[in-house]
Amino acid sequence: MTRPAFLSDNEAGTDPRILAALVAANEGLALPYGADDLSAQARALCCEVFEREVFVFPTPTGTAANGLSLAALTPPYGAILCHEAAHILTSEAGAAEFFTSGARLIALPGAEGRFSAETLRAALESIAADGVRQPRPAAISLTQASESGTVYTLAETREIAGIAHGAGLRVHMDGARFANALVHLGCPPAEATWKAGVDILSFGLTKNGGMNTDAIIVFDAGIAAELNHRCKRAGLAQSKMRFASAQILASLAGGLWLDNARRANANAQRLAGALAGCAGATLAQPVEANEIFVCLPEPVLAALAGAGIVLRPWPGPQPGLCRLVTSFADDEALIARFLAVVAPYSSQPVTTPLTS
Amino acid sequence: MTRPAFLSDNEAGTDPRILAALVAANEGLALPYGADDLSAQARALCCEVFEREVFVFPTPTGTAANGLSLAALTPPYGAILCHEAAHILTSEAGAAEFFTSGARLIALPGAEGRFSAETLRAALESIAADGVRQPRPAAISLTQASESGTVYTLAETREIAGIAHGAGLRVHMDGARFANALVHLGCPPAEATWKAGVDILSFGLTKNGGMNTDAIIVFDAGIAAELNHRCKRAGLAQSKMRFASAQILASLAGGLWLDNARRANANAQRLAGALAGCAGATLAQPVEANEIFVCLPEPVLAALAGAGIVLRPWPGPQPGLCRLVTSFADDEALIARFLAVVAPYSSQPVTTPLTS
Amino acid sequence: MTRPAFLSDNEAGTDPRILAALVAANEGLALPYGADDLSAQARALCCEVFEREVFVFPTPTGTAANGLSLAALTPPYGAILCHEAAHILTSEAGAAEFFTSGARLIALPGAEGRFSAETLRAALESIAADGVRQPRPAAISLTQASESGTVYTLAETREIAGIAHGAGLRVHMDGARFANALVHLGCPPAEATWKAGVDILSFGLTKNGGMNTDAIIVFDAGIAAELNHRCKRAGLAQSKMRFASAQILASLAGGLWLDNARRANANAQRLAGALAGCAGATLAQPVEANEIFVCLPEPVLAALAGAGIVLRPWPGPQPGLCRLVTSFADDEALIARFLAVVAPYSSQPVTTPLTS
Amino acid sequence: MTRPAFLSDNEAGTDPRILAALVAANEGLALPYGADDLSAQARALCCEVFEREVFVFPTPTGTAANGLSLAALTPPYGAILCHEAAHILTSEAGAAEFFTSGARLIALPGAEGRFSAETLRAALESIAADGVRQPRPAAISLTQASESGTVYTLAETREIAGIAHGAGLRVHMDGARFANALVHLGCPPAEATWKAGVDILSFGLTKNGGMNTDAIIVFDAGIAAELNHRCKRAGLAQSKMRFASAQILASLAGGLWLDNARRANANAQRLAGALAGCAGATLAQPVEANEIFVCLPEPVLAALAGAGIVLRPWPGPQPGLCRLVTSFADDEALIARFLAVVAPYSSQPVTTPLTS
Repeated sequence: MTRPAFLSDNEAGTDPRILAALVAANEGLALPYGADDLSAQARALCCEVFEREVFVFPTPTGTAANGLSLAALTPPYGAILCHEAAHILTSEAGAAEFFTSGARLIALPGAEGRFSAETLRAALESIAADGVRQPRPAAISLTQASESGTVYTLAETREIAGIAHGAGLRVHMDGARFANALVHLGCPPAEATWKAGVDILSFGLTKNGGMNTDAIIVFDAGIAAELNHRCKRAGLAQSKMRFASAQILASLAGGLWLDNARRANANAQRLAGALAGCAGATLAQPVEANEIFVCLPEPVLAALAGAGIVLRPWPGPQPGLCRLVTSFADDEALIARFLAVVAPYSSQPVTTPLTS
Repeated sequence: MTRPAFLSDNEAGTDPRILAALVAANEGLALPYGADDLSAQARALCCEVFEREVFVFPTPTGTAANGLSLAALTPPYGAILCHEAAHILTSEAGAAEFFTSGARLIALPGAEGRFSAETLRAALESIAADGVRQPRPAAISLTQASESGTVYTLAETREIAGIAHGAGLRVHMDGARFANALVHLGCPPAEATWKAGVDILSFGLTKNGGMNTDAIIVFDAGIAAELNHRCKRAGLAQSKMRFASAQILASLAGGLWLDNARRANANAQRLAGALAGCAGATLAQPVEANEIFVCLPEPVLAALAGAGIVLRPWPGPQPGLCRLVTSFADDEALIARFLAVVAPYSSQPVTTPLTS
Repeated sequence: MTRPAFLSDNEAGTDPRILAALVAANEGLALPYGADDLSAQARALCCEVFEREVFVFPTPTGTAANGLSLAALTPPYGAILCHEAAHILTSEAGAAEFFTSGARLIALPGAEGRFSAETLRAALESIAADGVRQPRPAAISLTQASESGTVYTLAETREIAGIAHGAGLRVHMDGARFANALVHLGCPPAEATWKAGVDILSFGLTKNGGMNTDAIIVFDAGIAAELNHRCKRAGLAQSKMRFASAQILASLAGGLWLDNARRANANAQRLAGALAGCAGATLAQPVEANEIFVCLPEPVLAALAGAGIVLRPWPGPQPGLCRLVTSFADDEALIARFLAVVAPYSSQPVTTPLTS
Repeated sequence: MTRPAFLSDNEAGTDPRILAALVAANEGLALPYGADDLSAQARALCCEVFEREVFVFPTPTGTAANGLSLAALTPPYGAILCHEAAHILTSEAGAAEFFTSGARLIALPGAEGRFSAETLRAALESIAADGVRQPRPAAISLTQASESGTVYTLAETREIAGIAHGAGLRVHMDGARFANALVHLGCPPAEATWKAGVDILSFGLTKNGGMNTDAIIVFDAGIAAELNHRCKRAGLAQSKMRFASAQILASLAGGLWLDNARRANANAQRLAGALAGCAGATLAQPVEANEIFVCLPEPVLAALAGAGIVLRPWPGPQPGLCRLVTSFADDEALIARFLAVVAPYSSQPVTTPLTS
């Protein structure tokens, strides 16, 4: 069976510069559990990158980062509001319920993978009206970039976070693809997070060139103190922490993480631009990060298949819907081949950004 | 401040051969979540090593391996019996309670870090007599090697496991230092585990040369099916699984794990042999794996300090108690220096194995 | 403010015959925690009523009965499928998540408060296709009578339970209004429960004349053994159990529970029959138990209000939707007054049963 | 088999005056879930009795009161320090772990069923020194009266609570026999609770004349808001709340609860006074509330048995240890018979209070 092309940003290995940093980190002995020098450097660099004191908790997966973050914001009798397509709801096997000891995820609808401020406000009012019969809303979770490959604008984030805070909730951002969202927004990390009202960030590194490390970025000392315990209790405090920290350092130093995200996003624009020009093709979602959801007509799919390029069908009501995910490690030869196959079907190539 | 010598087997980096395997594993794309080739090979090699079908769940820490394992054996209303010094009870911040959703750890006393079959039997009878007022005993956990650096004999393991099974409990082995125990026992892994009644093993690799991977080894398909869900739900299913699998493969292939453990154990014998011969020195525990608990007289401590060798004081009733942990990565020059300092105090060097 | 009429079947006090039984039960000393004579009699009578060995766990609320029951069927990493309007999902503040330690409730749509066999089958297939990313379905919960005042037929229950069992799930019935459903079905309790595939029943007594006791009826000895522990651990094992058992005994003895349910259902038919004949009135749901959901035109509402009868508005898309709940303790004078007010608006009184 | 005399204060039925209040409460309809008049009156009376605003949560058992209280004070990653004989640790099947979602109970030693301020201080220091490897201490629980039938003095309570608060912990009092402790102390409820530093009280009523209601008394509005959710979520919010409130009202009104406790305590003094004078008899604990732990010589046990009075053997190292529990419902004829049997063995009856 031919493996689908652009299957996932989990397929790539480790960025060579991050791998080199891991090899370098292997020298000599080091104190365990984050008392080593590299971990101190990683913390300092995160503070610099986010332009304030932050607390950093490396985690082996994004699910762990999400679960711990939500647990720090939500009591067991609480509720978390998120988009109905949020990864924490659809794809993490109940991790949110596990880490929070039984809080409930409440799904909010919304076009293009985002829920609106108005939808949030209405949901909170409806739940409040039902009183003690409902789990108490304690947090919201924004997926940035969203599961549809779209990005909340800064204004949207600020308005949503403002409503949440006004109602006594705190704000989690699931940033498994945070770098991709950030380069789309074109703003500093601080603007996209704590300055916009985000209380805690699941900071994705693995999809963007890391080997096996994401991180929680915490903007509050009290939450950080609590996470110290929760992280250990969840089996997520690594003894040889230097190897997680080395990945964070190498990723952030010199902006490698942003370069990688720019490349992934640019590749998505190239592919989507070609596809959008095909007669009968429809982009199911605006392309703002590194994911493309597109409905392709049979001839295009056949031509691609003829060139050995199979795409991943994606569940949904639209016929012929496929998902493509680009990454820092995309094969230029594959992209060139893809574009060449598609070109004949593309009467008018789209060159402007394909965003909303 | 001088860093203590022989502080912990968490200080070392990655064994160079395992690091090389990680670098090699970085080539090309690979399916995520364990669907890659290296993961298949790692599973196959584990089956070979344990001489039967086993199921393998890589975890980023030993605490995660213990927590998941115990959760698979114990319902939330259950209890787990373990030694009063067991790591799961004393050092994991309540991970057992977290993963099991609130089961209770029941501490059993026992000399040299081990509890006896008789102690287990008496405890089970006492709990059963109290009926529904007690959490229902569902599992035991054996730490092998123990927190005192000692090793349950095969006969002890078999008898204890037999009592557990007879009472409807299942048997977990916390093998953070399983390799060290195994080379002390001098038997195949199968003899030390499932053939002796162990149902699930936390298989330590990180302390023994790995970078950031331990593993759960499951001997039962039903438990494995359950762990598939639990592992994902706990944020422990890594996307780029090939890097965990590469560590397991490199560690097991060619017996690297046993070689490393042999070296660590041999170093412990060398150090302990020298120390045991010192007038006024007392080994607080038999030295059977890679840990030494020793009470040293002031002159010896002073002489070591004079040579820049500070030891880690260990809490306990004995004055001058220190812990030394050896590893695959011990510095031969440091060992030589250590032995040279101690020699003048050691009237009669002990050369026979220092075990019970 | 005028209290709404027919507000809830929780408003009534205790049936006088059950109250008398409580007074009688107060004589002398009795062994605690269910070792008393009345508790033995209650268990025996339940076995007789259900025509087989059953295990009985009195609980102080229906929510406790539901939560414990679901926990006995569902592991923490599991999922429970139920109707989107099920009380366990909409009105119990996350009790299902609490008792199960974090399982997830999955909402199924369905007209008239019931989900269909086909809906269940499709949902199970869809979840199974998504593999380990989803909580593992472990149980379904049928609300009987449903939150819409309707009743699953025996054939529906059997078909749904068959699909659940075929997929490895077990079947819970939330019978907060089980007696009302049963008299509608006109069959013995055994037919409506274990013979139809129900594994565990939340048996509502409080709404039907009890003071403060519902019960879990278990049809399986293994589940019962587990519930012994869970019940104690949840603070639900009452010391002076004789007072719970006395309520169960008095309720079941001589069929008082069925008489009370018949009276409540008959009252619902009388009220609904009158309302359904009013021009502009619409029954939003078939009336099969003791609840009426009806949209009433303004003149009828005004006439009732003029007679001091205010109805409880019910949230929903239909304008003027109200809910009326009848009970064993309905005031005949109030009913007569109600019917008299409505009569002029009711051109053609409906006399046939108002069921689907 | 002869039932032991003075077996438990759970054997008695309901105090006739409380039963009468239940019968009276049955009149008419009432709003459910605590919105009824009796519940408002019960809350008001509790405020009066405790001389400040308090929040009242009726519970069906003391275990439920303890579990909810501890959950309100302790996060899932926390620890609760209590006496090694505390009911929450020894007799509630893991309810503390259940309600807190996995916090740990840490056992403190102490003579006569009480731990000392010094023991608490040392334990907190030891745990703090171990950092993140330990669950974070969040609460202490004082059992008042203790499981040994003794009572913390006001000075002891204040000192212990002061240490707890100083270390950032909060204070729970398990008052299953609070009334018995209070009449021993001879002070107002306020002095024994919030004025001494107690943050939340499990207020026992069932053993002291109630039918099936204890209560949580909360001294803090924030905790109360949280308990509103937790109580509902645990299936402990009763629909026909008036019947719980009626018991609270009848118990507190006119001091019935204190009269009942005085009678129980006085009976304990009478029995213990007679036993303490017997040659060869030893009180194992001071008798300060309504429990007697006594080692009796064989002739006395035989004489009692000859009169049909069997005592309950109690586990412990002392030969012949028995426990007797007195209550408001003790049979005067039985007491007279008991005293008559014992008198011949009692050379010098003890008439002064048998307390420390």
